Amino acid sequence: MNMKELIIIGGGPAGITAGIYAARKKLDGLLLTKDFIGQLGNAGVMENWPGEKNIQGPELLESFKSHLENYEFPIKQEEVEGLEKSEDGFRVITEGKSFESEAVIITTGRRPRPLNVPGEEEFVGKGVSYCVTCDGALFQDKNVAIVGGGNAGLEGALELSDYGKKVFILEIGDRLQGDEYLIDKVKDRKNIELLTKVKTEKIMGDDFVTGLEYENLSDGKSSKLEVEGVFIEIGSIPNSNFLNGLVELNDVSEIKIDPETCRTATEGLFAAGDVTDVRDKQVVVAAGEGCKALLSAYSYIKN
Amino acid sequence: MNMKELIIIGGGPAGITAGIYAARKKLDGLLLTKDFIGQLGNAGVMENWPGEKNIQGPELLESFKSHLENYEFPIKQEEVEGLEKSEDGFRVITEGKSFESEAVIITTGRRPRPLNVPGEEEFVGKGVSYCVTCDGALFQDKNVAIVGGGNAGLEGALELSDYGKKVFILEIGDRLQGDEYLIDKVKDRKNIELLTKVKTEKIMGDDFVTGLEYENLSDGKSSKLEVEGVFIEIGSIPNSNFLNGLVELNDVSEIKIDPETCRTATEGLFAAGDVTDVRDKQVVVAAGEGCKALLSAYSYIKN
Repeated sequence: MNMKELIIIGGGPAGITAGIYAARKKLDGLLLTKDFIGQLGNAGVMENWPGEKNIQGPELLESFKSHLENYEFPIKQEEVEGLEKSEDGFRVITEGKSFESEAVIITTGRRPRPLNVPGEEEFVGKGVSYCVTCDGALFQDKNVAIVGGGNAGLEGALELSDYGKKVFILEIGDRLQGDEYLIDKVKDRKNIELLTKVKTEKIMGDDFVTGLEYENLSDGKSSKLEVEGVFIEIGSIPNSNFLNGLVELNDVSEIKIDPETCRTATEGLFAAGDVTDVRDKQVVVAAGEGCKALLSAYSYIKN
Repeated sequence: MNMKELIIIGGGPAGITAGIYAARKKLDGLLLTKDFIGQLGNAGVMENWPGEKNIQGPELLESFKSHLENYEFPIKQEEVEGLEKSEDGFRVITEGKSFESEAVIITTGRRPRPLNVPGEEEFVGKGVSYCVTCDGALFQDKNVAIVGGGNAGLEGALELSDYGKKVFILEIGDRLQGDEYLIDKVKDRKNIELLTKVKTEKIMGDDFVTGLEYENLSDGKSSKLEVEGVFIEIGSIPNSNFLNGLVELNDVSEIKIDPETCRTATEGLFAAGDVTDVRDKQVVVAAGEGCKALLSAYSYIKN
């Protein structure tokens, strides 16, 4: 078995930035990722990657990927199912294969958080979606609901209001949570209706979604909305399941890191980006963290 | 006096990223900077900003600046000379003016470290330079020396070897310090000569530089090089002089920050990027730190 110096797990902004730096430092490495999609690949318009006023998430991700591919740094598209200590480092397990390395950087990011209400799982792909950018255009001239009034929900609502007849935003808190800039934009749209202090209870349908039931938290009364699409934008959860106790997680399953070096409590194991407990889940922060993790891993490997 | 919510001091990757996020959050703010040049504006080809395989430093900086200018966020090109506490926040002093704000983010970056040898100050602009990108082309078909064998020195040497007759790299340590990738490139160039374990002692000249004297640390003997240009690439020092004790600095004059939030020990005062004690002085890290500092300052202002 060929023992590598470094394996990077994950193909988002943190992993790719780590890969670019690893390639430039000529590390004997490998980047393993299920795909190059993730949160950024599912994002709509991005306006906060410095230097790009306005770029689609997948396009930005493609520019990162193409930058990495410019070097001769091995990439394998395989889903990592497990990670364990080996004699001299770590063993990374994918379907039917395993790879060994001295150091590992985990950059597996996050996935959408489910609402966990009746009808949600049943109607995924039949009106229930976690990705406005992917599925929004399927709802031309239809009424849709978006659950969640943070930045992702607001951006989704703006995009949906270009397609749809009417867009309802359901926010459980008493006010929208996103940037002022986006809140202003949303309030300017005549076909967006805000519902605050409401809790989504149920998604109804036959072959496809036909409606949604919510509780008004002010008076405890339930109401229904007739919608054909329900977009769920209530945050995300870290992709840290495959780690099986090898690293310390915080109470929301994020990998605990030293914020200065991206080291985990396990020697030789580093983590960066949205899968970690880094406070700010932003593309530019994840990219910076990927660089930091690689520079730490480099010192670890060479010293 | 109009009290602002936030003043950002500095116009590099950290400050501009903070500005972009501040603008999107509609903070009542102001960005103050002497200029939009700094280290990135003096950099040559950049190959480690994710998504840009190969871009000139000034071009990348211009894309950041143009992104910020896309919003209506006030920018003033004035050099900050002092910072002090005011009744409700901070007072930022420029030449003949002052500005007040609730919170301040310092992103003033670094400047080149001088060698502090005889002849250096005397011949600045007459053969002594701290910026290959700015001045390299003036040395067509001339012999030049570059002091410093880290990444900046190696990149500089590569650029100079395209113009110059012969390029000497003088490194005080016993081997080059830069990325393997760059070391390989440098070794491939026939007109680059490496001198290791040498200490530059003196820069000589009449109207312009004519040579350089160095000590060979192995045997203590001094030697001379006939060169018409001396480029000094021995690192940099933080632009933290104007702070006059308002924030805690480490022993190399960097602003101490909490690595998770970019807070300084002074409430309401944040710092990001290369002026801080962040371990990794990289453009992508500075940009990420600028985002983190802004999100911390935003919470501070709004809560």
